[in-house]
Amino acid sequence: MAETATGCPPEKTAQTLIEFKAYLAEIQDLGHASALLGWDRETLMPPGGIAPRASASGTLAKLSHQYRTSTVITDFLNTLSASDCLKTLSPVNQALVSEVQRDVEKQQKLPADLVQEFSQVTSEAQHIWQRARKDNDFKAFSPWLEKIADLNRRRAECLGYEDSPYDALLDLYERDLTSAQLTPLFASLKDTLVPLLQKIQASGIKADGAEKFAPITFNSEKQKVFCQTLLKSMGYDFHRGVMAVSAHPFSCGIGTPSDVRLTIRYKLNDPREAIATGLHEGGHAVYEQGIDPALARTPLGTGVSLGIHESQSRLWENNVGRSQGFWQHFFPVFAEVFPEVGQIFDANSFYQAMSEVRPSLIRTESDEVTYNLHILVRYEIEKDLIEGKTDVLDLPEIWREKMNAYLGVTPNTDSNGVLQDVHWSMGAMGYFPTYTLGNLYAAQFFNTAKKALPTLESDIANGTLLPLKQWLNKQIHHVGASETPDTIVRRVTGEALNPTYFTSYLTEKYVERYGLD
Amino acid sequence: MAETATGCPPEKTAQTLIEFKAYLAEIQDLGHASALLGWDRETLMPPGGIAPRASASGTLAKLSHQYRTSTVITDFLNTLSASDCLKTLSPVNQALVSEVQRDVEKQQKLPADLVQEFSQVTSEAQHIWQRARKDNDFKAFSPWLEKIADLNRRRAECLGYEDSPYDALLDLYERDLTSAQLTPLFASLKDTLVPLLQKIQASGIKADGAEKFAPITFNSEKQKVFCQTLLKSMGYDFHRGVMAVSAHPFSCGIGTPSDVRLTIRYKLNDPREAIATGLHEGGHAVYEQGIDPALARTPLGTGVSLGIHESQSRLWENNVGRSQGFWQHFFPVFAEVFPEVGQIFDANSFYQAMSEVRPSLIRTESDEVTYNLHILVRYEIEKDLIEGKTDVLDLPEIWREKMNAYLGVTPNTDSNGVLQDVHWSMGAMGYFPTYTLGNLYAAQFFNTAKKALPTLESDIANGTLLPLKQWLNKQIHHVGASETPDTIVRRVTGEALNPTYFTSYLTEKYVERYGLD
Repeated sequence: MAETATGCPPEKTAQTLIEFKAYLAEIQDLGHASALLGWDRETLMPPGGIAPRASASGTLAKLSHQYRTSTVITDFLNTLSASDCLKTLSPVNQALVSEVQRDVEKQQKLPADLVQEFSQVTSEAQHIWQRARKDNDFKAFSPWLEKIADLNRRRAECLGYEDSPYDALLDLYERDLTSAQLTPLFASLKDTLVPLLQKIQASGIKADGAEKFAPITFNSEKQKVFCQTLLKSMGYDFHRGVMAVSAHPFSCGIGTPSDVRLTIRYKLNDPREAIATGLHEGGHAVYEQGIDPALARTPLGTGVSLGIHESQSRLWENNVGRSQGFWQHFFPVFAEVFPEVGQIFDANSFYQAMSEVRPSLIRTESDEVTYNLHILVRYEIEKDLIEGKTDVLDLPEIWREKMNAYLGVTPNTDSNGVLQDVHWSMGAMGYFPTYTLGNLYAAQFFNTAKKALPTLESDIANGTLLPLKQWLNKQIHHVGASETPDTIVRRVTGEALNPTYFTSYLTEKYVERYGLD
Repeated sequence: MAETATGCPPEKTAQTLIEFKAYLAEIQDLGHASALLGWDRETLMPPGGIAPRASASGTLAKLSHQYRTSTVITDFLNTLSASDCLKTLSPVNQALVSEVQRDVEKQQKLPADLVQEFSQVTSEAQHIWQRARKDNDFKAFSPWLEKIADLNRRRAECLGYEDSPYDALLDLYERDLTSAQLTPLFASLKDTLVPLLQKIQASGIKADGAEKFAPITFNSEKQKVFCQTLLKSMGYDFHRGVMAVSAHPFSCGIGTPSDVRLTIRYKLNDPREAIATGLHEGGHAVYEQGIDPALARTPLGTGVSLGIHESQSRLWENNVGRSQGFWQHFFPVFAEVFPEVGQIFDANSFYQAMSEVRPSLIRTESDEVTYNLHILVRYEIEKDLIEGKTDVLDLPEIWREKMNAYLGVTPNTDSNGVLQDVHWSMGAMGYFPTYTLGNLYAAQFFNTAKKALPTLESDIANGTLLPLKQWLNKQIHHVGASETPDTIVRRVTGEALNPTYFTSYLTEKYVERYGLD
């Protein structure tokens, strides 16, 4: 009686929940179609198809925005989030309401004309950026970068923040992440990584993997076969997946967890890129395939954040795939596919090639030690830009200075410098730090996995990867987005994000790898 | 002033037209996404992806239905179709208004619950049918066929008709087509085809193509290369297209005319299927690629009807691809890809293999002479079924009788008989006759092409196919759906559909091929 009086009769709540989920399922269906439009664009679409594809993607995005800002969804939320109703819901349903509420609030805070302007400017800016990078012409791109920074500042004002407008952007990609957390975190990374890099360089051990691989031609079809072997070993389910080729490798859940795909790119004179990419995208894909099917077609049926997602890709790529044990098992398999390799490498020297440190101008080609220094450069630059402390025209010089200071290399062109990444042209500022978060989470999760699975290292050295995959499924993947990143990392590892697992892992590994100290 | 008084000021009309087209473009965008979902399902989707794909397709269909029945679209139509407004529009815009009006009226006549029931029943029925065909178990499928016939009768009642409820269904696939037209047309075909077939069989010339090809293995990759050569020769633009593999070949406009795709299936012991399919699907695809880009993202930017569409595929497959001249040029090309073939065939005997007549139990494997007899069997059966003159349980026996009477072959199983086609399980009744219309239109168009292009036959014999493609582009493809099928055939050929072009073509060709009379 009391419940009826407060407007929350159980039958009505149950019915509202059913309708709410049916409504959310349609939003997910639009996301399914959008994801397929994107997948096809990168993997198969003929060049002529660009214009109608852009229109179709735009219309689906518009419809999704309409669904997410309509009074239908706010009515559902008002009913379900009334305090006396909310407490009657299961924890997962509470998480669902909270997640949708968060999304709707964000959508509503952004005025439609700002959303549209952002979409138009970034759509054009990507073309401008492509040409500018090709022509090494930063000046052609700089007015667009200025516009994008300005639009992001306006988005931040609409979304709201406490300390820095940059925090509002960070939160778009990693729930609750702030620069107050990131700044000391990056400082501690820098304190470890820069000296480690210097010691490695002082060791006199040359990074000559590229030179050793160069004389061999690595046939794409054969590389593909080896990557399939790796993916099967790590438990990627081809019955619910597709592996294809694209210029910029990616993974994507089209109907998560039933249809999760990935792409790889094959370099003919160096197999390491395809191997690392296969493990990396495989890690993302195994995550999405491992999400509880009961969460499918809800906003919880996906990876919880970019940082946690990246932890799964980096764990397989680096903690597993660049380990000495891994290549004890997989080098002979690889050498069977490419017998020429057996004449130049053995398991250990192949591991050394997979884990060599060579400061690079290009983030996507960088090694484990320098990767986060690349992110640091971007973090510092975009934070200052959003806070209005930097002029866009100064960015090329700032980029060069920071690269020189942290990595000891200086780009000779802007194409190899400030123009190298697609992210800013897409409007994504505040995204890069999630890559570093991923590395930190990965080390912390892997550290826990080693304790939970006492035979983990010998398993890996025997090519037995499924116990690790199953542990990740159970600990991290299964819950999808029904727990926050912070909850997950605390539940799994017993503490909040702690960067020392990463710095210890890296120091220990590379001290040994390079015979330091 | 008078115009303003009647509510049709030119500026307002122009503005309404812009908004109307923007609205229609969004419906086309949903169609674009739906087409891609279908393409991917047949070509690439992993088996696990079935369930989420069905949901996503269903949601897009629902949204499209909402767009097409909303008051927004009826308001546009009310404004634009007011007689004093309509006459101020260009002919293409008048056609657009008329086409949309026709679609909206149909959508509105069908109650939402009937649409939904139809969708659910046919979605389930396809699975039931697949199993029933596999198990040769007509009884398992018959209750579903009964339901589908009943739903189609109800649809016909909602849509309205003059003579037969079957006419309402025919009109769904070919505008204005009626059984009053079809019955005499099929009668005249039967009068020509059945005696022709009997004479061919009495000639004593064996159909032994399959036996001759059987010892050779036709590598799929090489067949693909030859099909690419054919498609390039007929002017299919790979810059705006993709050629893939699927179990049931099809073509599909995803962003017509900028992205039009096709699939082929390769049989390892008989290359004729891939050749015929390549030309057939290529004909469909060249049609869609040839539509005026100014019609893109409107309902006029597509093939006008199933019959006209099929005319383009059959023209290339049969009138061109099964002609003696065609193989004068292309046999040597084929024999270069498969040298073994050169030891068994020459250009003429290869042509004979491509045009041999062998009554088959299966429609999709049938030759030019018997194909329309297969359609006749289906036409008579489904017309009687919709008119309530037949009991579903009698269909297997009726099927056997008609096959024996018209083609002289009797299926030994229902899988090879009444259960062979997917169409009925999809709810499509009234669709089959458009296949025959396609054959008739093709012969009539080809007859005109020969007059318009005096060197057509020698061009084909030289492998020069582009003049024909360009003529078809200009005469038929360019207008898209902005003219009715009847208008197109009259404009191009100077008369209405006339089946004697087909019967003359076939008689002349096969009298010569088999040395009859």
